[in-house]
Parts: sequence; structure tokens; C-alpha cells
Amino acid sequence: MTDALEDAGLLSPVRAGTPAEAAVCDRAWLQAMLDAEAALARAQARLGTLPAKAAATITAAARAEAMDLRGLALAARETANPVVGLVQALTRVVAETSPTAAEYVHRGSTSQDILDTGAMLVARRTLAPMRGDLARTARALAALAEAHRDTVMPARTLALHAVPTTFGLKAAGWRQLVLDAEARLREVEERLPVSLGGAAGTLAGYVEYARLEGVLDAAAYTDRLREAFAEETGLAAPALPWHALRTPLADLGSALAFTAGSLGKMAVDVLALTRTETGEVTEAPVAGRGSSSAMPQKQNPVLATLVRSAALQVPVMATGLAQSLVTEDERSAGVWHAEWQLLRECLRLTGGAAATAVELAEGLVVHPDRMRANLALTGAQVVTERIAAVLAPRLGKAEAKRVLTRAAEECRSGGRSLQDVLAQHFTADELSELCDPAGYLGVAGALTDRALGS
Amino acid sequence: MTDALEDAGLLSPVRAGTPAEAAVCDRAWLQAMLDAEAALARAQARLGTLPAKAAATITAAARAEAMDLRGLALAARETANPVVGLVQALTRVVAETSPTAAEYVHRGSTSQDILDTGAMLVARRTLAPMRGDLARTARALAALAEAHRDTVMPARTLALHAVPTTFGLKAAGWRQLVLDAEARLREVEERLPVSLGGAAGTLAGYVEYARLEGVLDAAAYTDRLREAFAEETGLAAPALPWHALRTPLADLGSALAFTAGSLGKMAVDVLALTRTETGEVTEAPVAGRGSSSAMPQKQNPVLATLVRSAALQVPVMATGLAQSLVTEDERSAGVWHAEWQLLRECLRLTGGAAATAVELAEGLVVHPDRMRANLALTGAQVVTERIAAVLAPRLGKAEAKRVLTRAAEECRSGGRSLQDVLAQHFTADELSELCDPAGYLGVAGALTDRALGS
Amino acid sequence: MTDALEDAGLLSPVRAGTPAEAAVCDRAWLQAMLDAEAALARAQARLGTLPAKAAATITAAARAEAMDLRGLALAARETANPVVGLVQALTRVVAETSPTAAEYVHRGSTSQDILDTGAMLVARRTLAPMRGDLARTARALAALAEAHRDTVMPARTLALHAVPTTFGLKAAGWRQLVLDAEARLREVEERLPVSLGGAAGTLAGYVEYARLEGVLDAAAYTDRLREAFAEETGLAAPALPWHALRTPLADLGSALAFTAGSLGKMAVDVLALTRTETGEVTEAPVAGRGSSSAMPQKQNPVLATLVRSAALQVPVMATGLAQSLVTEDERSAGVWHAEWQLLRECLRLTGGAAATAVELAEGLVVHPDRMRANLALTGAQVVTERIAAVLAPRLGKAEAKRVLTRAAEECRSGGRSLQDVLAQHFTADELSELCDPAGYLGVAGALTDRALGS
Amino acid sequence: MTDALEDAGLLSPVRAGTPAEAAVCDRAWLQAMLDAEAALARAQARLGTLPAKAAATITAAARAEAMDLRGLALAARETANPVVGLVQALTRVVAETSPTAAEYVHRGSTSQDILDTGAMLVARRTLAPMRGDLARTARALAALAEAHRDTVMPARTLALHAVPTTFGLKAAGWRQLVLDAEARLREVEERLPVSLGGAAGTLAGYVEYARLEGVLDAAAYTDRLREAFAEETGLAAPALPWHALRTPLADLGSALAFTAGSLGKMAVDVLALTRTETGEVTEAPVAGRGSSSAMPQKQNPVLATLVRSAALQVPVMATGLAQSLVTEDERSAGVWHAEWQLLRECLRLTGGAAATAVELAEGLVVHPDRMRANLALTGAQVVTERIAAVLAPRLGKAEAKRVLTRAAEECRSGGRSLQDVLAQHFTADELSELCDPAGYLGVAGALTDRALGS
Repeated sequence: MTDALEDAGLLSPVRAGTPAEAAVCDRAWLQAMLDAEAALARAQARLGTLPAKAAATITAAARAEAMDLRGLALAARETANPVVGLVQALTRVVAETSPTAAEYVHRGSTSQDILDTGAMLVARRTLAPMRGDLARTARALAALAEAHRDTVMPARTLALHAVPTTFGLKAAGWRQLVLDAEARLREVEERLPVSLGGAAGTLAGYVEYARLEGVLDAAAYTDRLREAFAEETGLAAPALPWHALRTPLADLGSALAFTAGSLGKMAVDVLALTRTETGEVTEAPVAGRGSSSAMPQKQNPVLATLVRSAALQVPVMATGLAQSLVTEDERSAGVWHAEWQLLRECLRLTGGAAATAVELAEGLVVHPDRMRANLALTGAQVVTERIAAVLAPRLGKAEAKRVLTRAAEECRSGGRSLQDVLAQHFTADELSELCDPAGYLGVAGALTDRALGS
Repeated sequence: MTDALEDAGLLSPVRAGTPAEAAVCDRAWLQAMLDAEAALARAQARLGTLPAKAAATITAAARAEAMDLRGLALAARETANPVVGLVQALTRVVAETSPTAAEYVHRGSTSQDILDTGAMLVARRTLAPMRGDLARTARALAALAEAHRDTVMPARTLALHAVPTTFGLKAAGWRQLVLDAEARLREVEERLPVSLGGAAGTLAGYVEYARLEGVLDAAAYTDRLREAFAEETGLAAPALPWHALRTPLADLGSALAFTAGSLGKMAVDVLALTRTETGEVTEAPVAGRGSSSAMPQKQNPVLATLVRSAALQVPVMATGLAQSLVTEDERSAGVWHAEWQLLRECLRLTGGAAATAVELAEGLVVHPDRMRANLALTGAQVVTERIAAVLAPRLGKAEAKRVLTRAAEECRSGGRSLQDVLAQHFTADELSELCDPAGYLGVAGALTDRALGS
Repeated sequence: MTDALEDAGLLSPVRAGTPAEAAVCDRAWLQAMLDAEAALARAQARLGTLPAKAAATITAAARAEAMDLRGLALAARETANPVVGLVQALTRVVAETSPTAAEYVHRGSTSQDILDTGAMLVARRTLAPMRGDLARTARALAALAEAHRDTVMPARTLALHAVPTTFGLKAAGWRQLVLDAEARLREVEERLPVSLGGAAGTLAGYVEYARLEGVLDAAAYTDRLREAFAEETGLAAPALPWHALRTPLADLGSALAFTAGSLGKMAVDVLALTRTETGEVTEAPVAGRGSSSAMPQKQNPVLATLVRSAALQVPVMATGLAQSLVTEDERSAGVWHAEWQLLRECLRLTGGAAATAVELAEGLVVHPDRMRANLALTGAQVVTERIAAVLAPRLGKAEAKRVLTRAAEECRSGGRSLQDVLAQHFTADELSELCDPAGYLGVAGALTDRALGS
Repeated sequence: MTDALEDAGLLSPVRAGTPAEAAVCDRAWLQAMLDAEAALARAQARLGTLPAKAAATITAAARAEAMDLRGLALAARETANPVVGLVQALTRVVAETSPTAAEYVHRGSTSQDILDTGAMLVARRTLAPMRGDLARTARALAALAEAHRDTVMPARTLALHAVPTTFGLKAAGWRQLVLDAEARLREVEERLPVSLGGAAGTLAGYVEYARLEGVLDAAAYTDRLREAFAEETGLAAPALPWHALRTPLADLGSALAFTAGSLGKMAVDVLALTRTETGEVTEAPVAGRGSSSAMPQKQNPVLATLVRSAALQVPVMATGLAQSLVTEDERSAGVWHAEWQLLRECLRLTGGAAATAVELAEGLVVHPDRMRANLALTGAQVVTERIAAVLAPRLGKAEAKRVLTRAAEECRSGGRSLQDVLAQHFTADELSELCDPAGYLGVAGALTDRALGS
């Protein structure tokens, strides 16, 4: 193997060693295309237009380990896709066992049926563990939300303390996004279709070979072939051949971008809360993790960093998949070919992010004491909304807001506490009660409960 | 009005004068935000925490025509969003009728509740006619598919004739994408939620004002408020406040990019088939349409051109909406603010494309004679796949393909017809039957029927 | 005017009221296209192929105020671009003065020559003030860098304190990016070309009319016409007609994305430093600015927020401009048409960001006391790199790093200070000197000086 | 090696086996980072702060073959970048030769200095052959342009015949874009900088170690170190440390997107001209190339297809690089990490496209006979612009255009030739001369000459 073949994940640590990496590598993609060839043979065999023995021989031969991956990749330059070479290679291997069976390889088919079906198999094989990781992440976040249902912390808007909230509600929000992502992936996964169109979407090749085998009703035959191919692969049966109707690709791109983005939300929040001055959460301390090549004291939030790195890449790559809809003719010269690597990268990065998010969520350490201490920084200012509401009936809404705005300015500039400034309007007891952040949480707890379904 | 306020659509003819344009303009957006304020007041009134009369006064005052749009836009620079100014302006108008009612404007609320709810209203108001236009387009394409169920034409892959197909199947494919788009938009539309979070997603402001009105059970109150707000606006009730959980924006972006792309597929196909040498379709001839500033003979395919221009823009803009998920804190400083114009533009361009697609599909003129003439260009070569299938049992698959490949090369270089070259393998009658493109349509007709649901 | 025409900037406060907004609005774009028509007439007049009087009449008539903007926009739907209608409208206005002169409007020309030249004029008119704003921003940042050359603050990497740095070096870095942006814009601006190709890039129409006027040497004539057109517009003369060679659009997109991004860097740094717990900078306090609709105490960093909102939008829109290179034929059906609105939006947002950045940089308030206080949070840990370097010769590099890593962990968990933990390795005086952050600034000061050119 | 490590290029045939692939693979990237470590040691040795012998030992040990690539990739998950592990691995290898030298590995440095410098080395090593390929492509296109300086063909705008042009001018345009790309790449390549900032951009670590070696003037020392490091690597010396000032990444992204797009223009033109009905060019016939898995007659335009596939992917990926400018603090947690794979993919795809473009341009076969035949399809209509110009002085411009528009409509509907319709306005000789496409080429030839510099 030459150096050019190595992709150890050196530049993409978010996915190095995660299940998605193995599920989308060249060898896995090759196997999925071979699986498509074998399933197609078996489907034809089920309908009696291909000998069962040939289908079995083809299935047995369809092993990626037996093939020269690099040779196929280089050969793909001559035909703009790897299937032409794959069919030749598979035919050769089958012919070693049975020259007769070799006649039935790729019968009636076309490159795109195989590559697209293979891509859908790869997608399904990547989505399954990905959804499992999302479910684990959601569980971990549910546990965090429950444990910290009443842990008070500052909500922040436009970079500044706003009003108090709870860490439980924040974790419940992260979980909600993860559940939204899981739902979108599941919906897409259930619809992943086989590709069965023949040379240009009319199924003419399949029909012609079936005709030669004595099939008379082409429409009924192709309907049954589509169902049989779907059953053999475990994929869905599409409404129409989709060589040039790229709904599955656009849907995959959207759902993966959504997933990466939903995990990215958690990541940027974790990073914001991890900042030295804030320190409200830290990633699980693991020996050696988060160390720096220069600074011995560092314990960097590496998991959130990795998740964010994926969340930044996937949406831009998914743009290319959304654009794949705009494809001319019965098969585009170039638009189709631009999909493959983008799809692989979206699957791999999102799968890596999901695996990383499990570690992040399961290990996250929360520091309620720092949350309290940070709340104390702004003191009563974090509840000026409340005080304004209480003053509104007495002074009018506008005047109440003005009073509080002025009071807050006085605090910022002069160092007086808000309580001092507002002493003329309230008794000490009133003020003390009004200014307790824990007393101004709205329905954070109830929202958390509802989101967790309890 | 200064020049800067004018956006007549000069640079965006795909949407100039279409319903989407009016539905998303600044004035419409302002009205939608005012509608949100009014609905919020009425919702509180229904729960008894705001006087019914005040809600009625606020509703009556919430008219965009009464406001200084430019003044609000300029004021928005001071607060980074237009709602702070809008609340002041609305309060002033309400106060002219009733100073008491003015106290209840925006009660317990926050800018993002109003802007996000307004955005969802704008989206719904744009999606409704857009879906209507997609339905009309689908109907027109169904009629085309039915009328041309058996109109034979060359299928093209990688820019070259592949095998024969029908125009009916092509139109049925375009329709399928349009139906896919419509389904995605409908799903998103049904889920468009009100935004109700208060200052930072805990609903604390709403709860505090309700408490002052004697409400004891905050959780029950906010649940009912959410439902009442949803009913007053006709939007959905979300699981959690979504200030920082941007599922609705990401979903809208995906569905709009899908829709624009699905229409773009039809557009690039129409453009390919319109090319002078191909001439298989033309847009409906309309006096003056398609003329050039230089060339009198031109009748340009302007509708397909406009649709394609939208299909190229929307996916890149939707990238920004997908990225809006990665937003820090309870409200981001900048990520939220980057959504608004991108959403507007995606809605406007896609709506314009949908309106234009209706004209394109309803007026498309099909030229079966040119399709036949074009098929004749490649003659029997367009069915070499079939001939190879027939020869395969006699010569073996590989040898059959080799024979045909050589024969095709001979035709290309020497000018002989394929029939001549293949005369040694078939009788004249066999050849004549085999080489008829209309005899090698696979199940194009049956697929069209099934897609049309007949 | 109907509502659909209004774009007051309500959804795009970053540019509301800034020079870029007026420079790119529909009316301005129309004027620029009219300027192109007039300049073309004058250029032909200079070469004697068009009467000077006609050129003067055309120039006088070429006023956007005189035209029905909305009518032109709607008419553009019929021809897929606004120039066909513009030529008719201009011809009518000219004909009122002189029917003879009207014969010379748009002579030999084509829509794209006018629209592209107009777009380049709009770009230049937007870039000039934008570059001015970048220069002002750079000056303000230079002043900040100079004033805070020695203001010590924590450098932060991966969200955590790293080693000490200075605010001067940070501001010098922001300035460097702004200078980089200015240089890229200047380079692009100097190359903005006239578009002169005629119907399809051969200049045939111009040549034909010139021939009718007795011009014999077409090559020399078109060379001189190109130069004259460039001089009349102040734009550059391109190597070749560029209807389908979209270098200028791709270059503009890149330079604008760079500029928005470079300002975005400053914005996200300001936002990070503004966070309540950090508080190292604040935006200039301006009455009413930064207020919230809900929370009286808020003084939001609105300028940084607005700049960031532009920095998030421009790169995704510029993607569409980069893609404009891939355009088929002598003029694309759709790719060209997708450029206009994207270019306008990139210009407008970047121009708005530049204007906003001036305010941000000129008003930024720096809090050295908070920087010192924040440094104190990590104490000596922020210089463990230094201590490790000093220990390395004594203990070996690896052992030194291990000692420091362990020591830092001990500090984090046990609450001991690093000085205590390290007491065995150093004298108190050594430790005191080693642990002073101000003593471990590397060449921050010298780098700042060099960057400022002093 | 596990399967996950294999990337044979199966999904990216545009780059399989091209020089860029080897230049950017994980092993090459690892080597580049090791080269950076070695160069840094030698640079310090030149300044006397590191023993020359240690620098030599480090240089000798810095070989990627000696390292466990997969182990480093997996370890990178713990630190979010591969350099921490690389330093440990390099230290171990060096220590085997000389424990003393091992003390000097990575001295004063930080992960980002090494990764960024390595990335710049990889970029340069990829850009050099890429620029060579662009130069070869430009030469081939110059030859085509020269050979076909006077080959008449239809220019096409909005999918339809416009006026005549020459293939020479078209090829000259493609070449111009390639030259523009080459110029942009060269400019970027010349500026590719070393990264030298130390832990957080102050160079404090380098300074501290130098101080321990007796260096007194830190500013002078770091200036010289920067120069020495630049000389040792052959890269440029940057104005400031650029850990968080991502100009080089944004510039690379822009230049690569431009290059891919410029080649994409040629590709889509070749595809349009290759279409069966048009047939004006074909790719060089190469045995087996362009074959289909289904259709024996096919000779697909695979090179143009591959180039277009890259042109569609690179701009969306480059979006992520443009966004890398917006990066917080002295080193971002995630934005930096998102750059690596995007940069690699942009380099690889663009390099592959450049290599493929050489083959495409050098082998392109032009069919002047088909160009003439296609021109004949529209007959005189392709010169209506000219006839209108000639009629304008007689009938007025507007009336002349109306006459021609009507005449063209009559031709389209009634099948009469334009000459017939116009017989009343011209003598037969006039008409014959006017209607010769070869007589209406404007200055296509002169433009081609000028573009080719002759």
C-alpha cells in the first residue's frame, strides 16, 4: 500500500477510532456496493430470472477483502465511477468458481444503481450507531437535567448576565436538540431507498433480460423486483428510480447538518461555561486528556472542541448535497460525482461528533458553587426585570424601567449595590426577597420536568 | 422615503411581483411582530392576567401602517434588534387611546419572543401560497406526464444519449420532486411554533406579572399561556422555549433549500432540452417575453433561467440557517441576528421560484418531432444495451459487450450504421425490431402511471 | 409605492443607515447602469462613431429618478434581466429631447455589458467608503494598541488561560487583519473592469455600427473603445470580455468575505472579553444603546453583535459568487442571474460591518484592572510554561513538565497555591519573580511596536 | 493496518493517483510537521540557543515512516490535535540516539506553531505541481486557441444560438481563467508563512529558553529566529504570529475555490459542446476510457465530468476556511480544528482537477464541421443583430428590431428562411453577404491574438 492510501484520521480527531470511521471507509463502501450486486442477483433469483445457484455464487464472491481497492480507485478515473471496474473484478472472481454464474453479474444493471444502493447501505450502517450514540447522549443529559433541576445559574444573553436560570433547564434544552436530531435521522433512515433504474431510469435492461427468460408482464415484474431488492438489502422501495431525483441525498445532508449543529450547540455552551473566569462546568478529568504541548497547567476542554470542529464543517459540506438536487438529464456529468465524498465526510464527522458527545455528556462535571459565585457578581442586577415588574403598578411601566436602568448605571459606575440604590422604594425584607436569584426562576423547574417527560 | 428604502426587485426578477415578495417585506415583517404583540396581550387576557379591554386596544393599535418603518430600522442599530423600538412605538400609539392599556404592552415579554413569533408568522404566510404554487406546478406536470406518457425521447447520461425514455417519465420525475418539496414544507409549516420564553427562557417575566395578578400555580399558568398564544396566532406550541434551540430555523432552511433545488432540477432539464440543437421543449411563447436587448431573433427561456437563479442562491443562504443551531448561551450575540435576512431571502427566492415554476410548467411546449429526430441521430446506438442483452446468451456477456463496443466505434469513425455492422448477427427483421427505440422503453409507461397514481 | 418596495433595513441593522446601504439600493444600481449607458455613448462619441450631441443628450437623460423602478423590475421578469426594459425607458426619455439621439442609445451593446459595468460601478462606489471605514478602524486600533502596549492580560487558548499577553498585542492583531482586508479590497477595486463584449463577447455589434460609420480597422477601434469606456467610467480595461469569465465576481466575493471575517474576529474577541465574568472591555456607553426590551440593567455589546451578524452571513453568500465561475456558454441561463442579489448583499453587509466597526473600535473601553484581576484567578498557573522551562535544565524537560502538571492538578483539586506546591524547588524570591505574569510577556511589546510600524 | 485507514480515492476519482493525493495524505502531513520541528531546531541552532548536534539529531529522527500514524491519530483525540503525541514520539526517537538532544525537541514551541507550519509546507508542496499543471493546461489551451483562431461556431447565450463566434476565442477565455487562477495561487504561495508564536502568540517560551542560554535582547532574538525558521522551511516570515489571525487559511481557500471554479468553467463548456446533438468537441479517445457498465456505445466525457465534480465541491468546502477568520481568543477551541480536513480536501480536489484538466485540454478534439452544421441550423437568424444594425439607419432602430423580431418569428413558425422573409429589404447579394456567419465575427480573432499575447 502506498502512502496515499492512508487516512488514519490524523487531521480529524473527532472521528478517529469512532464507529463511523470504519463504516464509511473505502473498503466499507466497496463492500456495500458488492452487497448491492449480490442482493440484486438474489432478488432476480427470487423472481426466477436468474439461477439461484448463480446468485449464491455471486453472493459468496462479493467480498471486498478479495479486491484490489487501489486498482479500482485508479480505474475509476477512466469511467468517472468505480462501478465499471468493480463489475469486472467481481465477474473475474465469480468466474473462478463458475463461468456460468459470471454471466449473471450486474445483469440488466447500471453503475448508478450499484453506487447509490451502496451509498444508502453505508448511510444506514453509519446512522444506526450514530442514533445509538445520540440516545446515550440524551440519557446522560436527562440525568444531568434531573440532578440539576434546581441548580441556579445565570442565564446569559448577548454575552451578559440576563436573569437567573437553572442548569437543569439548560441540559434539558441540549437534550431536546439531540432528540430532534435523532428524530430527523430516524425519519431519513427509514426512507433510505434502493436504487433501481437501469441505464437511464426506465429499467429497460432488467426488463430485457427478464423477457429473455420468458417474463411477459414487465410492469409487474419490475414492481416485484423492486420489492425483492428492497427486502434483500433492508432498504426502502422508492416511488420512482431516483438517479436524477436526489431527494435521499438532500435529506441525508439536512439531517446530518442538523445533527452536527445540535451537538455543536452543546459544545459551544460547554466551552462558554468552561472559560477560566466562569468555570461552571469542566469535562471529566481523564489522565493525560486535555494536556498541552507547551503549558503544563492546561486541562483543555477537548471533547467540546472536537464536537464543535465537526459542527463547523458539516453544514458547509451539506450545502453541496443540497445542491445535488439541481442535476441535469437522466444522470448528471459531475453533479452526481460530487456527492460521494461529501456524503462520506458528513457521515463520518457527524458520527464522530455523536460518539464524542457521549463522552462529553456522560462525563460533564458541574460546579454549582461557581454558578452561585458568578450570580453574586451581578448581585441584584440579574433580577431588575423582576423589580421593574413589581414597581410597574406603583410607578407605571415606563417610569419603573427608567428607575431600574438608572439604578443599574449607578451600580456599574459608582460601586453601590442595587439594594442601596433602591432602598427608597422597598423595605429591607422586600428587597431581600426580591433580590434572591433563586426566587426568580420562572418555571425553569416545570419546563425541565415537562421536557424530561416526568 | 429615501432611496435606500426601495427594493423593487430589480436584481431579483424571480420574485418581483410574486406573493412571497409582499409577504416578507419589511412592512409585512413589522406587521407580523405587531400581530405577535397583540396575540400575546389577548392570550394573557384570556387567562385573566390582562384586562380584555387593554388587549383589544393593543390589537387595534398594532398596525404597521401607523409606524415609522425607517425610524424603527435605524433605532434597531442601538439595540441590535427592532423590537425595543417597536415596543416603544406601539406603547405610544396605544397610550393615545388609553394610557392604562399602554401599561400592558409587551408585558412580561422579551424581544426574541416577538421577533421569533413574528418570523414564524411571516414564514407561514409565505409558505401557504408557496405550497399552493407547488400544487399547481405538480398538476401541470401531471398533465404533461399523462399527455406524453408514450412520447419517446432520448434519455441522456453524462451528456450523451443513453437509451430511449419518454417525456412522460421525465415530467413525472419533476412532479415527484415537487411533491417531495411540498411534503417537506407542509411538515415544517405544521410545526412552526410560537416563541414564548421571556427574558431568558424561564418565562419568569410572564410569571411575575401573573403573580402580581394573583396567579398561584405558575407552571399551569405558563402551560395555558403557551396554548392560548398558539391559538391566537395559529402557530404550534413548542416543547420548550427555543431562543437558543434553533430547530425551527434549521428546518425552514432545509425545506426551502430542498424546494428551490427541486424546482431547479426541472429548470436545468428545461434549459438542456431547449438548447438550439436539441429543441425538444420551449417555454410558452408570450409576446415580448424572452427578448434580448441585442438580438432580435432571441426567444430566451427566461422562466427556467429565473427558477435556476433561485435554485443556485437558496442552498448557500440556507447554510447560514443550518449554522444557526450552533449558538451560545440563552441568546447569542450575533448568531440570532444573522438569521433574519437569510430567512427572508430564502423565503422570498423560493416563493418566487414556485410562482415562476407554475408559469413554466403550465406553459411548457413539447416537441415530439424533435425528440424523434434527435433519437435518429444516434440511431440504433441508443439501444446497444438491448442488443448486447440479446447477444449475451449467444456469445457470453463479455463478448457481447465487446462486439457492441467495437460496432459503436466503427459507426462513430466510419459512418456505417450499426445495423450494417451487426448484420452478421441478426436477420434484417430481428434487427429492425431490436433497433426501434420505441421498443426499448422498459417500464417507462408503467412507472409514469404509478407515479401519477393511476 | 407598494409595501413590497420597502426595505428599510429592519432585519439588517448592521447596515441600516450606513453608506453601503444607499450605495447598493435598487435606485443606485439603476443609476449605475444608466451611467454605463451614458459612458458607452460618450466613449463612442470620442471615437467619432456617435454624434457628440447625442452622447450629451443620452448622458443628460440617464437619471434614475426619471424612471419607474418598479415597472422596470416587473418587466425584468419577461427578459430575465432589467436592462431590456431600461433601454426602452432610456430611449423614450432621450426621444423626448431628440428622436435622433434616441437612435444611439445602447448602440451595438447587450444587456450584460450594461449590467456588469453597472455592477462594477456599484462595487467601486461601495468599496471606497468601506475602505475609508477600514482605515479609520485601523487607526483606532493602532491607538488602542499603543495605549495598551504594556497592559497585561491573560491570553486564552481553548477557552482557558494560557500565558500572559498584552491587550496591545491583541489590538495590533485585530488591526493587522483589518489592514489585510483593506489591501485585498484595494487590489480588487483597482481591477474592477468595464464589461464590453457585445451580444456574445466578440464585440460584433459595436464593430458593425462602427463599420457603418466608416471605421475600417475593427481591432484598433475596439481597443480604443475599450480604453475610452474605461476612462469614461473610471474602471479598468479587461484583458478579454468577461461575460462568461467571472473573475471579477469571484474576486469581489473573496475580498468581501475576507473583510467581513476579519471584522468578525474583532467582534467575537470583544464579545468574549465583555462577558460578565470577564469584563475586560466594554463598548462605549451611549445613552439608550444596548438596552433590552425586558431587562433594565442590560447594556448589551450591540456593535460587536452587529458586526458578528455580518461576519456570519457574508461568507455563505460569497460561496454563491465563487460558484459563479462555473458558468456555461457565452452567457449562462441562471448562473449570471444568481450573482446580482448575492453581490449586493455581500457589499451591503460588509459595508455595514465596516461602518459599525469604526464605532466599535473608536469607542472601546478597556479595563486593565479587570485584566489584572482575571490574571490573579489562575495565579502562577498562567506561567507554568515558564517555570517548566526554568526547571528543565535541572530535572530534564519531561520530568519538569510532569512536576508542573502534577502541581497544577494539586492546585485545582486542593486549593493550595502553586507557589506552595513548588516551594521545594525555588527560593521565595525566585518564585516571586518567576510567577509575576508581567515578567512573562515574551516579546509582546516588540511585536506590537513592529506591527504598528514604530 | 485496519480498514479504517484506507483511503484509496475510491469516492474521489478526480484525484486518485494524482500528485496532490500523495502530497496531502496523513503520512505527508505528518512528515511536514516533523519537518517543522526539525527546521525549528536548526533555526535555534543557527542562533546559538540549541546545540548544532542536537539539531542534526532531531533532523535525522524526524521521519514519518518511523512513526505510528494510527497511534498518533488516536492519541490526538485526547489533546484535540496530533502535535502533543507527535512531540512525544519524536522525543522518544531522538532519545534513542541522544538523550541530550531529546531535551531540545519542540523547545519553547506549541502545537499550533508546528501544525500550522506543517500545513503551510503541505500547501506549498501541493501548490507547486498544481501550478505546473495549470501552466500545462494553459499551454494546451493556447495551442487550441491558435489552431482554431478562425474556426466559426455559434456563441450561445441563455441556451440558444446568439451570434457567431470562434472556438479560438472560447479556448482563449478558458486559458485566461486558468492564468488568473495560476496568478492567484502564485501570490498565495509566495506568502505562505511559518507559524511562530509560542504558547499564545507572545513567543514567551522561545524567549525564556533563549534567556536561559544567555540571550539578552529578546526582540532582536525573536526577529532573527523568525527569519531563520523561514529560511529553514523556505516559507515566508509573517508580520505577526497568526494563531488567531487566519489570513493564510482564508487566502488559500479563496485561491483554491477560484482555481477549481476556473477549471469548472472549461468543464461545463466541454460538457455542453459534447452533448450528442451538439457534438462540437469530444475528449481524446483512449481505449476503455469513458465506457459505461451498461451501454456499449458510450464514450462518456469523463475528464470534464471529474473536473466538474471538483469544481462543485471545493467552493463549499472553502466556505469553511473563509469562516475560520472568525475565531475567538488567542487560539480557538474548535474553529482552528475545523480547518485541517477542509484545507486538505480543497488542496486534494483542486490538485486532482488541475491534473485532470491537463489531460482534458491536451486531448480535446474539436469538430469544426459540426460547428458549421450547427450554425446552419439557425441559418441567418444568428446574425439578426447585424441585419438590424444595417436596417437601423434606413428604418430607425426600433422599427428595424421589430422587423427582425417579426421575421424571426415567421421563420420559427412557418418554416420560411429569414432570407425569404427579408427579401423586400435587400438585394440577394446583400443578403448573402450579410447572412454569412463568418462575416459577423466582430473582433474574435483579434481578441484571441491579444489574449495569447501575439
